[in-house]
Amino acid sequence: QAILVADIGGTNARFSVWFVGQSRRAFTWSCETSQYTSFDSCLEQLMAEMPVNTFAAACFAVAGVVHNNKCSLTNLGWIVDAEAIQSRFDIRKVRVINDFEAVGFGVFELDRSDILTLHAGEQELSGTIAVLGPGTGLGEAILTWDRMSGRYSVHPTEGSHADFAARGSLQHELCTWVEEHLSECEVEHVCSGPGLVRIYDFLCERNNHVLPHLTPAEISSKACSGTCKVCSQAVDMFLEILGAEAANLSLKCLATGGVYIAGGIPAKIKDILTNGRLGNAFLRPGSKMHALRNSFPLYVVLNPEVGVLGSKSVA
Amino acid sequence: QAILVADIGGTNARFSVWFVGQSRRAFTWSCETSQYTSFDSCLEQLMAEMPVNTFAAACFAVAGVVHNNKCSLTNLGWIVDAEAIQSRFDIRKVRVINDFEAVGFGVFELDRSDILTLHAGEQELSGTIAVLGPGTGLGEAILTWDRMSGRYSVHPTEGSHADFAARGSLQHELCTWVEEHLSECEVEHVCSGPGLVRIYDFLCERNNHVLPHLTPAEISSKACSGTCKVCSQAVDMFLEILGAEAANLSLKCLATGGVYIAGGIPAKIKDILTNGRLGNAFLRPGSKMHALRNSFPLYVVLNPEVGVLGSKSVA
Repeated sequence: QAILVADIGGTNARFSVWFVGQSRRAFTWSCETSQYTSFDSCLEQLMAEMPVNTFAAACFAVAGVVHNNKCSLTNLGWIVDAEAIQSRFDIRKVRVINDFEAVGFGVFELDRSDILTLHAGEQELSGTIAVLGPGTGLGEAILTWDRMSGRYSVHPTEGSHADFAARGSLQHELCTWVEEHLSECEVEHVCSGPGLVRIYDFLCERNNHVLPHLTPAEISSKACSGTCKVCSQAVDMFLEILGAEAANLSLKCLATGGVYIAGGIPAKIKDILTNGRLGNAFLRPGSKMHALRNSFPLYVVLNPEVGVLGSKSVA
Repeated sequence: QAILVADIGGTNARFSVWFVGQSRRAFTWSCETSQYTSFDSCLEQLMAEMPVNTFAAACFAVAGVVHNNKCSLTNLGWIVDAEAIQSRFDIRKVRVINDFEAVGFGVFELDRSDILTLHAGEQELSGTIAVLGPGTGLGEAILTWDRMSGRYSVHPTEGSHADFAARGSLQHELCTWVEEHLSECEVEHVCSGPGLVRIYDFLCERNNHVLPHLTPAEISSKACSGTCKVCSQAVDMFLEILGAEAANLSLKCLATGGVYIAGGIPAKIKDILTNGRLGNAFLRPGSKMHALRNSFPLYVVLNPEVGVLGSKSVA
């Protein structure tokens, strides 16, 4: 019995085929979304090239708001509709979920070695869990325990589009700088890959440094190797913002079950993660709410496949 | 069959007795919490003075974090423990819940006339609901739909202790001013009764106005009557902060089921509420997320008894 799992972002769509009971994927297939005018034409190509084209189940994780098993990816012009796919292809059961919902489900599929504990806290069984992940954007999800079914429900959110809560004068300056450029400053604007670039550009401008334009990966790698002072400053500021956002999200949903930081960036800067910036911003020693903050466990997900594992578990 | 309902705050405890099937309370009893060393001694006094002292059920809503039907009110030194109460008094079933959880349950007990629709939006049946209420503090709760039980679960949160997200230069100045005084600026520090006083004090200091110290009620009433310019400014700024916080909370939990603003203050300044400050801050025209914000319904709860109604429905 084969299962089809996909992760459909703005630029790439990545597919994998799994056989029930096997822990490794049997095949993979990916494509640039810009090459196809519709999701159907993309699936047709996949079915033509794959040795398997009959599936017991499929789960498609999409970067967008999902309603009734259906998502319209406005930037792409694609519609991913479970019912339409099911009637057109040989797939018995199709689920369309938000890409961060997939990460939420993925949390339960991880091994111990996939997780870095930044702060142990006091994990409460069946307590609410918060998941956030900075990458191309910032994803946020809330997991609540459902007493009747005896498992967690995953609620995808748009929390990254809430206003950024600046702490201290430098962050207030950054926030004002972003407000001047974009007319508003969402959390995502400073807590994502492009956000890291924004922080770097802000620091360059503020200190009258004329430095080259860098990608998020370049900033991270120069910070890790210690070869660029502004990059190190930018990553430290990014970690403080991420730690504060992890705390804010955990307070907003009372995440007594813990906070999981996923996404592409944290796993890549694993060594800097533990330099105290993130943890201190999360715990905020001296805060009125320090005891409560201290009770929330804080984990970093090191496995970049967490979303795929989640989709597979839903399929 | 009698039901006992209580609202236990830091200063007062208010009790009411209801008979099943009747919509009006049969008796009420209140006391200052400082007069009693324990909740038990307070209940003993109540039982001695009440014509009824056998109850089918009781629900006590407390201003604190509840664990396993039990809450320790640190400021008071009181412990409210359902099991202990049940074994000591003649009450068959006892529930201890957070006071804002009570407000969350109360939302479903309201009449149409108890609710002011500030923005209709597109209410989604079984969509997540956000509830927030500025009063002595700021309470926040999230209500998620539970498919298996066919009803909402109420999740009390500590969201008001997240960092305040300032928008625009005046709010950044306010945030910095609070950070200087309290070393941090939580949402609650500027979005509550004491928060309104803080905003007023900040505006006085900023404009070199030597004005009298005022209570939240005095600032609200002077703003309503138009007799104090700084009070009007303070209330406008408060409404902008409340509207933004309502939007931020709704994004954090994707409140497609709507946002309810409860609490003591909004109902008292009903006429100013509709002056556009709150609604505009919530919808944020021109924002990247305007379409999503626009889809969230925004309601104000005018009935100050919403918490009591919620407790009664839980009992």
